[in-house]
Order: sequence, then C-alpha cells, then structure tokens
Amino acid sequence: MTELLVASNRGPLSFRVHDGQLTAQRGGGGLVSGLASVSATTDVLWVCAALSDTDRQAASQAPGGYLEKAGYDTGGASVRMLDIPPDTFDRAYNVVANSVLWFVHHMLYDTPRRPEFDRAFRGDWQAYVEYNTAYADALAETAAPGAKVLVQDYHLALVPRLLRERRADLRIAHFTHTPWAPPEYFRMLPDDVATELLTGILGADHAGFLSPRWASAFVDCCADVLGAAVTSDTVGLADRTTRCGVHALGADGEFLAERANADDVETRMQAIRAKAGDRQLIVRVDRTELSKNILRGLAAYRELLRERPQWRGKVVHVAFAYPSRYGLPEYRDYAAAVEELAAEIQDEFGTDDWQPLLLQVDDDFARSLAAYRLADVLLVNPIRDGMNLVAKEGPVLADHGVTLVLSREAGAYDELGDDAIAVNPYDVSGTAQALHEALSMPADERAKRCRRLAEAATGLPPAQWFADQVAALD
Amino acid sequence: MTELLVASNRGPLSFRVHDGQLTAQRGGGGLVSGLASVSATTDVLWVCAALSDTDRQAASQAPGGYLEKAGYDTGGASVRMLDIPPDTFDRAYNVVANSVLWFVHHMLYDTPRRPEFDRAFRGDWQAYVEYNTAYADALAETAAPGAKVLVQDYHLALVPRLLRERRADLRIAHFTHTPWAPPEYFRMLPDDVATELLTGILGADHAGFLSPRWASAFVDCCADVLGAAVTSDTVGLADRTTRCGVHALGADGEFLAERANADDVETRMQAIRAKAGDRQLIVRVDRTELSKNILRGLAAYRELLRERPQWRGKVVHVAFAYPSRYGLPEYRDYAAAVEELAAEIQDEFGTDDWQPLLLQVDDDFARSLAAYRLADVLLVNPIRDGMNLVAKEGPVLADHGVTLVLSREAGAYDELGDDAIAVNPYDVSGTAQALHEALSMPADERAKRCRRLAEAATGLPPAQWFADQVAALD
Repeated sequence: MTELLVASNRGPLSFRVHDGQLTAQRGGGGLVSGLASVSATTDVLWVCAALSDTDRQAASQAPGGYLEKAGYDTGGASVRMLDIPPDTFDRAYNVVANSVLWFVHHMLYDTPRRPEFDRAFRGDWQAYVEYNTAYADALAETAAPGAKVLVQDYHLALVPRLLRERRADLRIAHFTHTPWAPPEYFRMLPDDVATELLTGILGADHAGFLSPRWASAFVDCCADVLGAAVTSDTVGLADRTTRCGVHALGADGEFLAERANADDVETRMQAIRAKAGDRQLIVRVDRTELSKNILRGLAAYRELLRERPQWRGKVVHVAFAYPSRYGLPEYRDYAAAVEELAAEIQDEFGTDDWQPLLLQVDDDFARSLAAYRLADVLLVNPIRDGMNLVAKEGPVLADHGVTLVLSREAGAYDELGDDAIAVNPYDVSGTAQALHEALSMPADERAKRCRRLAEAATGLPPAQWFADQVAALD
Repeated sequence: MTELLVASNRGPLSFRVHDGQLTAQRGGGGLVSGLASVSATTDVLWVCAALSDTDRQAASQAPGGYLEKAGYDTGGASVRMLDIPPDTFDRAYNVVANSVLWFVHHMLYDTPRRPEFDRAFRGDWQAYVEYNTAYADALAETAAPGAKVLVQDYHLALVPRLLRERRADLRIAHFTHTPWAPPEYFRMLPDDVATELLTGILGADHAGFLSPRWASAFVDCCADVLGAAVTSDTVGLADRTTRCGVHALGADGEFLAERANADDVETRMQAIRAKAGDRQLIVRVDRTELSKNILRGLAAYRELLRERPQWRGKVVHVAFAYPSRYGLPEYRDYAAAVEELAAEIQDEFGTDDWQPLLLQVDDDFARSLAAYRLADVLLVNPIRDGMNLVAKEGPVLADHGVTLVLSREAGAYDELGDDAIAVNPYDVSGTAQALHEALSMPADERAKRCRRLAEAATGLPPAQWFADQVAALD
C-alpha cells in the first residue's frame, strides 16, 4: 500500500526496441523532477499508460504492470504502466483528450464546422470513461488508507470522482496543465459530457491550475453549467467543497544550466552562428501545435521586414517548429502552411549573403538550448497557453540577456508580463511592432529585464511545485 | 431640423435600373415598421448608406442625398442616403463589419489561422472610422437641439461617441442586433480597436440588446477591456454613465398573417405538398450564414434517419438555405459543403417514391411563408444568434401547430425556451434526438405549445420595439 500516488497519461519511462531488446528511456519534465525529490523518503507509486506498442509489450511483461519489478530503473518510485486496449486508448487520448478537450480549453475550433458531437463521438466518450476508470481502479487498489493522490491533467478529469466513489478515505488533488475554457466556449460540449468533466474534477479535494485566469474560468464553468455554489476559490456541490489553487510551475534552473553547458549544445551554437553570423537572433521554440501561433509569428516577422527595412540583413529568425500530433489532419495542414509561409519569406527577402529565416522542423533538444543561449529576442506568442515553459527557460539560459516578446494569453504572462513586451497574439501588426521594439532595446535594459525574468521564471521550480500540490492536501 | 433620427447601414429603399430608369424598391423589417408607426406625427430622418452602384446613383442625384426630395416614396420619413466612396464602404462593411465584428460576436473564427490583424487591417479599420464619421457628420448637421438619435447595429458602433463629440446636446441610443462576444473572445481584437468599439457605444445614453446575455457580455467587456465601473445594467466611464437595456424584438404577427394568406403562398404550399405528400415536414429557413449551423442540422437529420429507421419514408426535411455574403470565400465554401452533404443524404436514403430532403438555395419569401404554414417541426439551431426571427415567425404562421427545435444559443431562447425542445447546437446526436421527440409529439401537445410560442413571439412587435428604444431616451 502506498502513501503517495501520482496518475498521468505519460509516465517517466517509454520503451523502444533496440537490437531486438526492449529498452527503457527516461523522460523529463516537472513530474519526474518532482517525484525524484520525494521518492527517497516516501513510498510513491506512479500510474501511467502504455503509449505505444513497445510500451504495451513492456507493461504486459512486467508483473502487474509494475516496471520496477521487471528490473527497469524507475528512479526510486514504483511505476505501474496500464495496458489499456489500443482502440480504447486511441479514442480516449487522440479523440477526446487531444481533439476535443485540448481544442475546447485552447479555443481552437473552426466553430462553423467543428466540433460535431455525433454518434461516433459517443463511442469515443465511452472510451474516455473506460480509460479514466482503469486509472481509478489501479489507484484504488494500491492506495494506503488516507493516502494522497495527485491526478494530472485533462486526460484524467474523471479520475477524482471515480476514485472517490471507490475510496472515500483518500485525499485527492487534480492538476490542470492546460488553460480552462470560459463558460461560453465550454458550453459547446454535450451537456452530460460537460457535467461529467466538471463533477469529475470536483471529486478532488483540491483542484490546481497554472494561472488564476484558468482557476477562475473553472469556477465560472461550475457555476454556469452545474449551478454550483462558488466563491473565488471554492466550488461547493452537494455536500462537498473543492478548493481551487494556483501552482505556477517554474523552470528547472539547475537542470537547464547544467544541460545547456554540455558539448553537444556548444556544437550547435557554432552551427547556428555559422549560418547567422553575428546578426541579432529572434528565436522561437515550439511544437507545431495549433495553439502556438507559429503562422502569425512568421507573418509578424514578414511585416517587420516589409515595414522596417532597416532590419533587413541585420536579423535572423531562428524558428524551431517540432513535430506534434502528426496523426491529426489539422496538424499536418498547419505544419505544411508553416513551411509554405517560411518559404515565401525566404523568397521575398533572402539574398546571397543573408538567409532571413532558419526554420527547423526536426526535434533536437540540444539545439533548442543552443538557441536559447544565443537568442537576442525570444518570441512566445501563443493564442492561449496553460503556462508556456519556453518563455521561462529562455531567459534562464540567455548568455547575454534576451528580450521576451510574450503573448498576454499565456499563463506565464502572470509572472513575466512586467518585464516582457506584451503582445495580443491575433495582432500581427502589434507583434511586428513588438519585435521592432525588442530588437531596438539597449543591451543594458535587455540584460536587466532578463535577470528579473529569470528570477521570476524559477520562482517555483518543479520539485517545489510538486511539493506544493502534496501540501495542499494536508 | 429633426426631432428623431435613425441611423443604419441599410435604409428603407434600394434602387435598381428597370427599363433604363432608376426604380426604388421598399424594404421591410423592424425599423421600417417602427418608423412608419411614428412618422405620421413626428418629424423623422433616416440616415443610411448607398449599398450599390444604383443606390449611389440615386443618392448622388437626390438633393443633399435626401431621397424624398427627388420624389421617391419614403413612407413619410425623410431619408438621407450617404454616398460613401465605394472602397471605403467595401472595407468598412465587408471587411470590418462583416468579416471581423460579425465573426467576433458570433464566435465564428477558425482561431489558429484567423483573424490576422495585419497592416492591411489597419487600412480597413481606418475605412470603418471614416464610414462611421460620415454618419456622425450627417446626423450632427440635421438634428434639432436635444433631438433623439437611434443608432443601429455593429456597423455603426463608433457613431454614438463621434456624434456626442459633435453634439453634446443630443440624446443618443445604440442598438446591437447581434450577440455580444464574451471578454475572452472579444480580447482577440487589437487593443485600440476593442477600446474604440466599446467607448464608441458608450457615447450613447442607452445601449440596447436583444437578450440579457448579450447585454451582460457587453458590460463584462467594458469591465475587462476598459476597466469601467459597471453594475448589471450600467457602465460608467469618465464622467458619463450608459444604461444597458434589453428590447427583445418580436415577430410582426399582423403583417405575417396577411402576407401568408396571399395567392403566391398558396401556390407554393401546393408545390411543396406535391413533392412531399402528406409526410411530416421538418422545416428550416435560413440564410446560408456560418452562424446558422446548417451543416450540423443536416448531419442531425442524417443521424435521425440512420438511427431511427422508423422515420424513413415518413418525413421530409424542407431546408431553405438562401444565398448570403457570397463575396466571402468562407461563405462560398460553406454553401458548397451544404449542397454536398445534402446530396449525400439524398444518395444514402432517397428512394423512387421518397425524396428525404428538399434543399432550396434560391431566395423566395412566399415559399418561406408556405413552409412555415405547413411545418410540423421547425429546426432553428444556430451556433450563436442575436435573436433569430425564424423561430418567432414559424409558430405564428403554422396552420396546424409546429414543434420548435431551438438552439439555446439564440436570443429567442429567452422567450421561447419553455415551449421549445432545446438543443446544444454542437451536439448533433442531441439534435437528432430532439428531432425524434419533435416528430413524435402528439398533435394536441404540439398545438398547445405552438399557441404559447406564438404569443411569446409577438410580445414585442416591431412598432413597440421601436417605440421602446425611443422611450428609453426620455
């Protein structure tokens, strides 16, 4: 029986076949560092899902799905990987979580046409219920009496209630890593689905969010859809009250500083300098995700070069747009549109000795760190974003200070807004103007602001963020 | 000098060339009937824009743009048609009003790609300012001291403030015929544009809306964007306070009843019956407007026929989807998608003696009235709608009672919701279920509900709606 449990879709290990052998690969992120910080002293279980056929193979070969029992290095915690049937997983994860809930909370729909909640969706929703139920069952089975359970994200919104039905003794927290939709947008969901999602999270004692905006939108939805009794940070329904809290996940400064000094990063810095020369660099690092607003970012760069010819030949836009959700047609189309617009910009402005845009679409973490170190301007312009860690990591790593151009629609804006140049992500002209101001900022002003940004960005490092969630259940 | 002035984009007359002569055609609608009811006793001026080259010709030939001075029958009011330069009009009307403000208030954007407020938009916005200024100038020139001015709709949102700057003595009302966007969506607009739109309307003493939802969204936007001091129905900014009110425009029962008994309507009833036989009819009458949700309506009908085979051969869906904004590519694509889906349904279910769907895309008012009279079920499922008069006109005209399937996102839902079957417009399965319930409703229940619907629908006929706006300025 375990005192502290974590549930998330993605776990700390993933598997590949290497030379005919299953090989485990350790992932990173806030949860991994958070758990590492407590697993030495506390008995911890992490419940996650098999995400691929190789994961599935590893999970099915491990006794009870416990990876450490199969001899894998799980970093101290016990890790149970759930082998959810592939079709159920696909519908729960790709359809409901990533094509519906993600779209709703980020307000990404082309509303005249999508979403369309038809009969096929009812089957998808059933799969989401089953996937959440598998987690609730696994957690209920292993939790010690009165144990604490941290349920992570929109994939698992039903788990708190399902788990409470099974184990009323547990102390349950849910944490949402996305934004939360305003009621007028959340209402798009079928009524029963909207109700189950909200009451699902309200099964928790504590509902955590990355920004006061998202917490407040959640409370508004509970009032609007459920008619719940709400205050600014509590929701009461039937005889239970759920507290809402904000835990603004920060950058992992120590890890980043160490990793960014490795040789592979140095090599990539040289490669970027070889292409860009000593010109100022506008850097962006994103998954090619619809919410990240890469197209309008490129359009703003084009408008900058058109309207402010003084920057031609003086600046290079280093844009990393890494593959994301390529299984979804919207994402493939979007990625193609990004490459097309990038080519147009190259054609319009490129010269024999100046390449205005370095677009890279192959994922390379070391190269991202290299770009952070070299950046003069960091462009982070999502149309809506739970937090956005790029905005926090960039200032921590910039060798000579970086000016952050930051969307006011990112959760990170709460902490970084004062020292960033704020943009409305839909305002391409405004973004072009912000890039101009950022490029024009004197070095000392840039360095001064960057120091304050880095400080704010590391205010709540992952271990502390994780500990705060645990403490919220005391 | 005039005591009562009305300003709207579209006026009561439009012009065509007939046998080489300019010919005036009178339009209908709430404003026309409203003005007719007061113009016998009050000195009234209606300021509108020339919408076409022939309108422009008529306006330029009339002394000062006053149509009655050129001998046209303006129904008692003085009508001044503004000859705004074609390019200015096109950018103000087609781009800013119809492709931006309409999209924002109806939440129609495909957000990952549009809107894109770039340099071209700044020119469009300037045109919108000029177009609004032309109205403010014309009104300021003619209004008697202390006169009342009723400014209509999202085309003219800047007029109240511009007019007050010119004539502080006037009593000004603004009325919004669309929904109003929630703050999280309204924030998409460039900051200065958002501010000018709100402060524009706040130049009025009274801001009118079709539903408490839209009034409350407007107040929320004023608080969020302007930091204005608000109550549930007032907005205070600087030293002025604007009252917000709801005037829920109703159907013109008398006019409809008379018009629907004309011979041309009877002819069309026979034509519909000839095709549909005595089967139950599900009727929809819409412009092919992105907000009207015709595609999901057709998808719901398809799901009904798939999942409830008992209705095959027993029901005909009469769908009128009239041309709208065909100049905009989104609308052309949408109209094509409607025809395509209709053809799929025809192919999937049509038999030698049953045509499941009668889709008509050519506008015919008499045929619309014929369909209202014959309808058993009226489907009104917009994703967002200021009011929706179809939902009000149908029950008034149904010969044998009609069951209204009504989107909860239409303003009309406030008054009609109790006796309609409510649908979430994004929920295709829910809409199919609602159609099933509507078709299954016993005749006496249908008739009883329809009587109550008709009564609620005519609660505030156009003349009264107009008089209320005037009275709100006392």
